[in-house]
Amino acid sequence: MSRRRLKIVLSYDGTKFLGWQIQRTGRTVQGVLEESLDKMHKHPVKVVAAGRTDSGVHSTGQVCHFDTDLDIQESNFSNAINSFLPNDIFVRKSCYVNTDFHARFSARKRVYKYYLVDYSGYNVFNRFYCTPVRNLSGLDLLNGCAQKIVGVHDFTTFTSVRDQSETRVREVYSAVFLREREFTVFRIEGNAFLWKMVRSIVGSILKYAPADDSGEELSRILFSRDRTLAGTTAPAKGLFFHRVYY
Amino acid sequence: MSRRRLKIVLSYDGTKFLGWQIQRTGRTVQGVLEESLDKMHKHPVKVVAAGRTDSGVHSTGQVCHFDTDLDIQESNFSNAINSFLPNDIFVRKSCYVNTDFHARFSARKRVYKYYLVDYSGYNVFNRFYCTPVRNLSGLDLLNGCAQKIVGVHDFTTFTSVRDQSETRVREVYSAVFLREREFTVFRIEGNAFLWKMVRSIVGSILKYAPADDSGEELSRILFSRDRTLAGTTAPAKGLFFHRVYY
Repeated sequence: MSRRRLKIVLSYDGTKFLGWQIQRTGRTVQGVLEESLDKMHKHPVKVVAAGRTDSGVHSTGQVCHFDTDLDIQESNFSNAINSFLPNDIFVRKSCYVNTDFHARFSARKRVYKYYLVDYSGYNVFNRFYCTPVRNLSGLDLLNGCAQKIVGVHDFTTFTSVRDQSETRVREVYSAVFLREREFTVFRIEGNAFLWKMVRSIVGSILKYAPADDSGEELSRILFSRDRTLAGTTAPAKGLFFHRVYY
Repeated sequence: MSRRRLKIVLSYDGTKFLGWQIQRTGRTVQGVLEESLDKMHKHPVKVVAAGRTDSGVHSTGQVCHFDTDLDIQESNFSNAINSFLPNDIFVRKSCYVNTDFHARFSARKRVYKYYLVDYSGYNVFNRFYCTPVRNLSGLDLLNGCAQKIVGVHDFTTFTSVRDQSETRVREVYSAVFLREREFTVFRIEGNAFLWKMVRSIVGSILKYAPADDSGEELSRILFSRDRTLAGTTAPAKGLFFHRVYY
């Protein structure tokens, strides 16, 4: 049987995962997914993802690839994998791709969404999927800050000092706050993101927006590359890895 | 300190509860709530609810009452209780009422909502809060059946043979299917409901609606009072105890 490369799009509820990346102990998305694929294939299968999400972060559009020697029709592969997966991971789509496709390196654009909610809209049903905020600023104020993030920048201010990327320069294509039902959602598109970058940007905008209608303060801390000026990193549970473009 | 009666409105995520009613073993909403109130009051407190929800059933509007000797302002009582509750129960409102108010016996109208979703809209985030259905009928067909339920009827067809009510006659004030985002929602209002009645009605409409655009078949099984003609009782996880009117 020839080997073919499969691309899959994954949703997962990050609540009960210690993030994407496999670890020696603890439940991870990669670990659970590979375990299921190992059972299907009856040999180990290595999965590559577009992005490594942290503990508690959700996904509606994580993309992965792996090579398979199973002769399963493209359209049936999702169902086949789902029958092995627990109910907090779900394969939404699957298709065969060229072997030069790489879930991580071929990605052109990644989209994250961060869900905020006023305390009046926070409830027992959305408690794992958004972050409640007191006196949440209006869209105008939030977007005054968000627009300052757009462009090619060194995002050192907004990443952990432990981030090990070779360069901290990334391009943000768009960054906007919008309303979605009871939520205020921060939607950010970029070529790639540093570790904790989205959550740190959200935390910083929440910190500076109330007194910064022009976004000047946010520009200043972005250019300072001084980690200590960032706001508190927003909680993982509000973050969704939304989509990857190739 | 004088004793006063407090009315509270409760949300809970039913996923990890064996229903409302306290049992010798297992986690119940009443059990967890009374335990929290016991701690606040430093003596046992007995709570009465408008309705006993089953294992896995949710609430956005359960109403309860209890008598208290604590001198806490009406508007602060919710926060006080919430500080003792786990994060899957939440007191939305609280107010003092006359001692002749009774959460169960004073209730004039109860409203339940049942959430259905097409498989294309079922995902890892709503998996505990709706029931996926294949080839879900359109609103016209569903409402053709639903309207037959309205009125004063003996609902024996739609309750468990183990229901111990003195009479199985209830009045349904309205019963309608409507769209709410990706969901098809069955909303039913009545004076009171028999055990498993809403879920049995939903299961029966799903069974008969596809071939019953006039609702004749549903009328026939309602009047038969023959439990064996009902459809499969719909799963608990799609049901929400929505509101109580006094």
